Amino acid sequence: MFPRARAFVFWLMVLALVVPSGALRAESGAGPAPLPEPPVTVPAAGMGTLHDALQLARADQADHPAAIAGFQRLAWEFGTPLYIYDRATIIGQARLVKEAFGARFPRLKLFYAAKANTSLAVMSLLRQQGLGMETISGGEIIAALRLGVPGPDILFTSSSKSPWEIELALREGVLLNLDSLDELAQVEVTAARLGTTARVSFRVNPGVDPHTIHQINTGISESKFGLHLAGGAALAAYRRALRLRHVQVVGLHCHIGSQITDPEGYVLAAGKVLEFARELKEQLGLQLAFIDLGGGIGIPYHDGETVMTPADLAAALQPIWQKGIARLGYEPTLWLEPGRFFVAPAGFLLTRVNSVKTTPVKTFINVDAGFNTLVRPAMYQAYHRVRVIGPKNRVVKADLAGNVCETGDILAADRMLPRPQPGDLAVILDAGAYGFAMASEYNSRPLPAEVLVDGDEVEVIRGRGRPDDLFRHQRIPGSW
Amino acid sequence: MFPRARAFVFWLMVLALVVPSGALRAESGAGPAPLPEPPVTVPAAGMGTLHDALQLARADQADHPAAIAGFQRLAWEFGTPLYIYDRATIIGQARLVKEAFGARFPRLKLFYAAKANTSLAVMSLLRQQGLGMETISGGEIIAALRLGVPGPDILFTSSSKSPWEIELALREGVLLNLDSLDELAQVEVTAARLGTTARVSFRVNPGVDPHTIHQINTGISESKFGLHLAGGAALAAYRRALRLRHVQVVGLHCHIGSQITDPEGYVLAAGKVLEFARELKEQLGLQLAFIDLGGGIGIPYHDGETVMTPADLAAALQPIWQKGIARLGYEPTLWLEPGRFFVAPAGFLLTRVNSVKTTPVKTFINVDAGFNTLVRPAMYQAYHRVRVIGPKNRVVKADLAGNVCETGDILAADRMLPRPQPGDLAVILDAGAYGFAMASEYNSRPLPAEVLVDGDEVEVIRGRGRPDDLFRHQRIPGSW
Repeated sequence: MFPRARAFVFWLMVLALVVPSGALRAESGAGPAPLPEPPVTVPAAGMGTLHDALQLARADQADHPAAIAGFQRLAWEFGTPLYIYDRATIIGQARLVKEAFGARFPRLKLFYAAKANTSLAVMSLLRQQGLGMETISGGEIIAALRLGVPGPDILFTSSSKSPWEIELALREGVLLNLDSLDELAQVEVTAARLGTTARVSFRVNPGVDPHTIHQINTGISESKFGLHLAGGAALAAYRRALRLRHVQVVGLHCHIGSQITDPEGYVLAAGKVLEFARELKEQLGLQLAFIDLGGGIGIPYHDGETVMTPADLAAALQPIWQKGIARLGYEPTLWLEPGRFFVAPAGFLLTRVNSVKTTPVKTFINVDAGFNTLVRPAMYQAYHRVRVIGPKNRVVKADLAGNVCETGDILAADRMLPRPQPGDLAVILDAGAYGFAMASEYNSRPLPAEVLVDGDEVEVIRGRGRPDDLFRHQRIPGSW
Repeated sequence: MFPRARAFVFWLMVLALVVPSGALRAESGAGPAPLPEPPVTVPAAGMGTLHDALQLARADQADHPAAIAGFQRLAWEFGTPLYIYDRATIIGQARLVKEAFGARFPRLKLFYAAKANTSLAVMSLLRQQGLGMETISGGEIIAALRLGVPGPDILFTSSSKSPWEIELALREGVLLNLDSLDELAQVEVTAARLGTTARVSFRVNPGVDPHTIHQINTGISESKFGLHLAGGAALAAYRRALRLRHVQVVGLHCHIGSQITDPEGYVLAAGKVLEFARELKEQLGLQLAFIDLGGGIGIPYHDGETVMTPADLAAALQPIWQKGIARLGYEPTLWLEPGRFFVAPAGFLLTRVNSVKTTPVKTFINVDAGFNTLVRPAMYQAYHRVRVIGPKNRVVKADLAGNVCETGDILAADRMLPRPQPGDLAVILDAGAYGFAMASEYNSRPLPAEVLVDGDEVEVIRGRGRPDDLFRHQRIPGSW
């Protein structure tokens, strides 16, 4: 069935080039509106690389011939919807963090919070930058191990660890970041059975609000994450852990949330955590190998927006850290685990316009991506910049509407965009984090492909899903 | 890697039974809290079928020995998280609709809106009940064709159809329910090229608010769906379609939304659509083969809730339909396309408790399912009943917290539930619609398994996803 369907796409594209629209119109009498002319931009030699095309889109120059040529090349070669990642941007973002914190914190270890983008090629790229892997499931641990990351460079954080995940982590020497006394008990029992010692930290809840999206505010009191500092739950957990034979307590962890754009909450949490470290030393005689302040460094999603940079955050944290370790009497390694910051701005979701419809209320640009491709707008009311690829004529106020059969599937609402034609391309910016990672096959649409751009080269890092994928592992009981 | 991980789960379960918790406590000094005792319920012969277990859970008798035995059997045999569907309930729901409408509408054709649950076995079961398939993507058309549903029994509705989907529908004789003039133009051109005639209807937007969840209100003016009746867009589309050579206009379609629990909006929309049918006859001389009033029949998600039944809706629609066809002078076939109603109450999501944590603010029951397994609570703030399987002692107010690393991943908030132990089971009701269909591998967790229960028999209809699934189609560029 499917090879035929894939062939359709190809031949339709060929047809769109070959058949003059006038001929079709003549054939069908008064006829439908003609098919749109295929875009005629021909990339000139040396006009710009694929990397340039991506950067032009970021700079709101999607009408630049190099941008048009680059995105057309990607769409024709790999189809749509397509996730595109820029290798140089990922590396550049990693360097920003490394340099900002490396300059101020001599004892530093950085992790990549892989859940933002778990494509192996992306994880591999960040591993090459020297980062450890912060994982939140057995599947992510397996991915990190596949890339050759050794267990001690893997941190496993989750508020709800399944038995097989705990066992996998223990067998591979992965550091377990614990969230409850129940988990501690299970880790002790499992480590005893395996004849090993679990290296653990506790995630504490500092009761700090980073003022970001509610769903991803992890450090507030109401959150399901962490053991509260207030009331003594965190201290009690450390006290109990120190009595266990198969548990070695090595660290302290805190993560207040995601997409943080102001250092204030971070500094507040750091202060509380450092104070708690002092309590651990004084009351339990515990010296920590590391303090993990989590991730959450935000990025600007809007044009012209300025947010906290890694350098801003490092500068804001340094005084409280210095003061804290002075009171502490020793210096634990500072661990940080950004995710979104490394990958979000490197990612572009390329989509094709299927139709444009103007109703009495709105104009809808209907594209071939939806919330199954990128869920953030529908789920978190998140804002992503959108560029229509092509000339900037006839700007209209429009919604970029997804192809999922739900009214809520609007990828971008009320944007001033050049009115496209069916077959034109649009690109959604900052789609590198929580994009593909959250994609689903809802509406029976196979998963998109992913490519990595390096200058003018491009490689497929995940082939496009196939209709057959929808049916994997399925069976229909014969007797029914 | 993974066979090992699966073996872990099994041996851990065995261990939990074999190792006396006291021994572990002794081994580790003051020690962790003991592992919970394994549940000791042993199913007696003839105590009840798996079907009974599911119904007991619905009736809030999850402490009944037959319920405990049934769910334990399912969890031990198939693992968790697990989607369970009850065959008798699906068939019963289909019969309710068939009987309610069959009694009042002699010219009737029913479809299953497959997007609610696209598992082939479920679609097959509803096909066996004589239903056509309402599809919203190429993937769903392919699924229907695989089940042997002929093209004319498939309706293809989408506000954003890709070229290959249009071509697939035309080649297979699928009826195209069109949403815009751009689509009409593409259908004409493609049908001409294929030397075929497209059978089409138009989805119209009646401007009716069914007062349901915003994201799934499809019939309001602001929605991306349909051609507006107001202002003449719908009429203009029919007028244009009638002039085309390769398009045959056969129907009229309207769908005001999902989870409708009151007939009022439905009746309002039916009136507008029938009036528009009269306009089509008078102004264009068009006689319709069918009028499709969509789906959207809701179900009660709360205990003790009563909502509109199919019989209520049929009774409410009959007078306006009779009046409408009297004015029309002919009787088109009434088409209806429920989805959720058939499958939602048949579905149960079984999940295992990993840990229980009481913070100063809340008690969290951390389970091994999350919004990647069932997205409705996190995405739509939807309410699903939850039952903890086991004795009803020590009821506490608690959140059933998912295992996704986001604060928003709460499957059920502030419920009075028996306080479970790690290893206990909980089941989420009414998970048969928009459950597995919307599931993702977010957080690198493979997809759950699905089983179909028939009396005391049970068959796997989708095997559990494997960690290897996470890596399918992926590659890491060698040179980088």
